[in-house]
Amino acid sequence: MSTRAAIVGIGLGPGDPDLMSVRARRALEGADRLAHFCKSGRRGNARAIADLVVGADPAREIAMAYPVTTEIAVEDPAYAQALAGFYEECVARLLAEVEAGRSVGVLCEGDPFFYGSWMHLWRRLKDRVPVETIPAITAMSGAWTAIEAPITWGDDVLTVVPGTLPGPELARHLRDTDAAVIMKLGRNWPKVRAALAEAGLEDRAVYVERATMAGERMMPVADMPEDHEAPYFSLVVVPGDGRRP
Amino acid sequence: MSTRAAIVGIGLGPGDPDLMSVRARRALEGADRLAHFCKSGRRGNARAIADLVVGADPAREIAMAYPVTTEIAVEDPAYAQALAGFYEECVARLLAEVEAGRSVGVLCEGDPFFYGSWMHLWRRLKDRVPVETIPAITAMSGAWTAIEAPITWGDDVLTVVPGTLPGPELARHLRDTDAAVIMKLGRNWPKVRAALAEAGLEDRAVYVERATMAGERMMPVADMPEDHEAPYFSLVVVPGDGRRP
Ligand SMILES: C[S@@+](CC[C@H](N)C(=O)[O-])C[C@H]1O[C@@H](n2cnc3c(N)ncnc32)[C@H](O)[C@@H]1O
Ligand SMILES: C[S@@+](CC[C@H](N)C(=O)[O-])C[C@H]1O[C@@H](n2cnc3c(N)ncnc32)[C@H](O)[C@@H]1O
Repeated sequence: MSTRAAIVGIGLGPGDPDLMSVRARRALEGADRLAHFCKSGRRGNARAIADLVVGADPAREIAMAYPVTTEIAVEDPAYAQALAGFYEECVARLLAEVEAGRSVGVLCEGDPFFYGSWMHLWRRLKDRVPVETIPAITAMSGAWTAIEAPITWGDDVLTVVPGTLPGPELARHLRDTDAAVIMKLGRNWPKVRAALAEAGLEDRAVYVERATMAGERMMPVADMPEDHEAPYFSLVVVPGDGRRP
Repeated sequence: MSTRAAIVGIGLGPGDPDLMSVRARRALEGADRLAHFCKSGRRGNARAIADLVVGADPAREIAMAYPVTTEIAVEDPAYAQALAGFYEECVARLLAEVEAGRSVGVLCEGDPFFYGSWMHLWRRLKDRVPVETIPAITAMSGAWTAIEAPITWGDDVLTVVPGTLPGPELARHLRDTDAAVIMKLGRNWPKVRAALAEAGLEDRAVYVERATMAGERMMPVADMPEDHEAPYFSLVVVPGDGRRP
């Protein structure tokens, strides 16, 4: 089945190109243009995953570089404004491609509809041109499989929290669940570690960096040096402990 | 890369064979034997997904039929005992294949380490023979993509609950999250629907049956007739409503 959509959000999975779906591979190979999000001057992670399958091809690539926003706090309305302007610009660029008769694939890490940047383009595009989203293996599935830790047994509840939440919110959610995943570590890591300790989960938590990719690292949180710096591409898994007949 | 594992838990994804990973396809095609869980006399859902790729081949198939347990309550220790005996039998059958020099793929719906039956074989096998697990797209990713509902935005918290939990537990978890997925509906559906209403989420919840498969159905929970009978292969998605710059 080939897609008729003009613009496709292609879920690339956690990193290993063999974990891409058959449909994602086909979309990756077939699209006239491949757009990716990145920081100015850098290649971007989704693009690095795609490189392993389709290779670099400047004529085919559309780089969407985030505006530099580190000097604005996330809570500041100026931050949302800068991002909104950026997404509008991206949308205009993609629509111009479609008007010129070209199909566009937008590269997405993991599953596009799970904390994905694609969602911000998708909601602006969906009523204007035919759009499709290809689901994918999430980073967390890649991670719990890499550490060989089944995440939910029997009646276990799984809670996924972004490390961006305030510490007390994190601790509260972590206390009231059987299994947990904490996304978006990076500079949130010291706060996340403290919340894990507060919830009494430090001994059950496992840290996974760049799951299924080159440079993959994993270790029990309890063994991590205090001054570990977690990159953005890392998460924490707390496996459930439910019924096991 | 070909796998060296004697026994491989193959995550087949939500149903559509194009949503299988490249590695899962390869494992499906390469294994000497393909084992699947089923109810006595039925083909089983994972096997039905595999059929779309490798076709039926009785000489290659190992059916692992659950003992009839509907007359025993899940809380009854006899239930766990019956299941444990069944898993031990399965393990013995798979080990006999390995001893005869054959590789075995165990077919899994969705992601094997996410509420999967494979986990019960895996924990009994992992210290005895080389075992591998291939992650996959979960049913919930298939479902939220099928209904075109991004699940988590910005700082949204996602909670996944099995419909098997007591009603008050369900309602409590549903009240304290931004986005939710409820698995294992079937006979739990009336209780789940009541918990959704109690948590004030009936208007945001979407029911998805057989996501990405033949017979796929989806509808807002608010539109569902009171006497709808939910099959086992159905779930509820409550999309998050977080930050959207
Ligand atoms: C914007 S979210 C995107 C999530 C993605 N859509 C998914 O389905 O997993 C980015 C976060 O995903 C996690 N992540 C993505 N890929 C990862 C990987 N290969 N290993 C560990 N964490 C990863 C990190 O927590 C990171 O901060
Ligand atoms: C034992 S769990 C297995 C979950 C699976 N390992 C996964 O990754 O999604 C079975 C439950 O998954 C859900 N499920 C599996 N496949 C589904 C599908 N195609 N559509 C809707 N729900 C599905 C149903 O809620 C069902 O009760």
